[in-house]
Amino acid sequence: MSNSDLDTLIELMARLPGLGPRSARRAVLYLIRKRARLLTPLADAMQQVAATARECLNCGNVGTSDICDICDSEKRANGELCVVEDVADLWAMERANVFKGRYHVLGGTLSALDGVGPEDLSIPRLVDRVTSENITEVILALNATVDGQTTAHYIADQLDGQVKLSSLAQGVPIGGELDYLDEGTITAALSARKPV
Amino acid sequence: MSNSDLDTLIELMARLPGLGPRSARRAVLYLIRKRARLLTPLADAMQQVAATARECLNCGNVGTSDICDICDSEKRANGELCVVEDVADLWAMERANVFKGRYHVLGGTLSALDGVGPEDLSIPRLVDRVTSENITEVILALNATVDGQTTAHYIADQLDGQVKLSSLAQGVPIGGELDYLDEGTITAALSARKPV
Repeated sequence: MSNSDLDTLIELMARLPGLGPRSARRAVLYLIRKRARLLTPLADAMQQVAATARECLNCGNVGTSDICDICDSEKRANGELCVVEDVADLWAMERANVFKGRYHVLGGTLSALDGVGPEDLSIPRLVDRVTSENITEVILALNATVDGQTTAHYIADQLDGQVKLSSLAQGVPIGGELDYLDEGTITAALSARKPV
Repeated sequence: MSNSDLDTLIELMARLPGLGPRSARRAVLYLIRKRARLLTPLADAMQQVAATARECLNCGNVGTSDICDICDSEKRANGELCVVEDVADLWAMERANVFKGRYHVLGGTLSALDGVGPEDLSIPRLVDRVTSENITEVILALNATVDGQTTAHYIADQLDGQVKLSSLAQGVPIGGELDYLDEGTITAALSARKPV
């Protein structure tokens, strides 16, 4: 630990979510061992992303152009708009590869405690998009947390009557075991039960 | 996930120990949000380390010169040589800030299963150093695993009679609770018990 370049790298790595001082040290030693195959490509990729990454001006997705590929594609203009909290949620939806419309990234949830109001999120822009992009259905894909559901209710109020509104179904996850589920999920799954 | 630069970065980050695909995506989004304060400095630090990091030719520590600061310091030439498995162990010893001698990094342990023999580790070089550096005591600070202890026994055989040999004490860790310790540690602590 004699060296300031190494110390700097370890200190910066330790700030990443999911890493702490110990795992940052491990990661840095690993990177040095795999210098040609991992460290140099990683440094280059970071420089590249630092130079090119930007937020889509329309939906808030992260990409390398002012308008992201999804907003740019005419095929995705099917009248469906999926509202998510952040970009990670958008990516999760895209991995499922089943939603064919466009997205709107809020950038967080309303939170009285943290002083986050509607003007801090992109809710006014969402209301604009619903009219300007001829949206027929808004799907609220917010997290099933208190803040997420508060935000969903607020948005539903704002858009009431203008557009069809829906939210993701709640119930037993695929592969889930009842024994490991919380009471809230079981209650939701039971009250939304379907005839077989 | 529309973009190949981003995909490349996520794929590379996911190869780090302690990160998987999910935490790599989280880390990359976090890096993009903290572009100026974290992403760019991190890319620079990686480039810097990729350009300058090297193994000490004498002991195997990682630094930025051919001979590391510890081997370079006359103060550390007190006749004590601490043998560790890898650089992470050397750093752990240095954090404790109590050992004032020099180190020798083996680069692993003997392992019949993985086909690692004495010539694959820096054991011949260790034997050389003991004479050339006027070492009076070799402290075996190897991990308390089967392979670590096998390696310690082998080194002890090689150096038998040439130098004083010692190994780290085994016992109850500071702050440790007996109830959570394994039987092996309790056995070791009991047999090495000290009068109060």
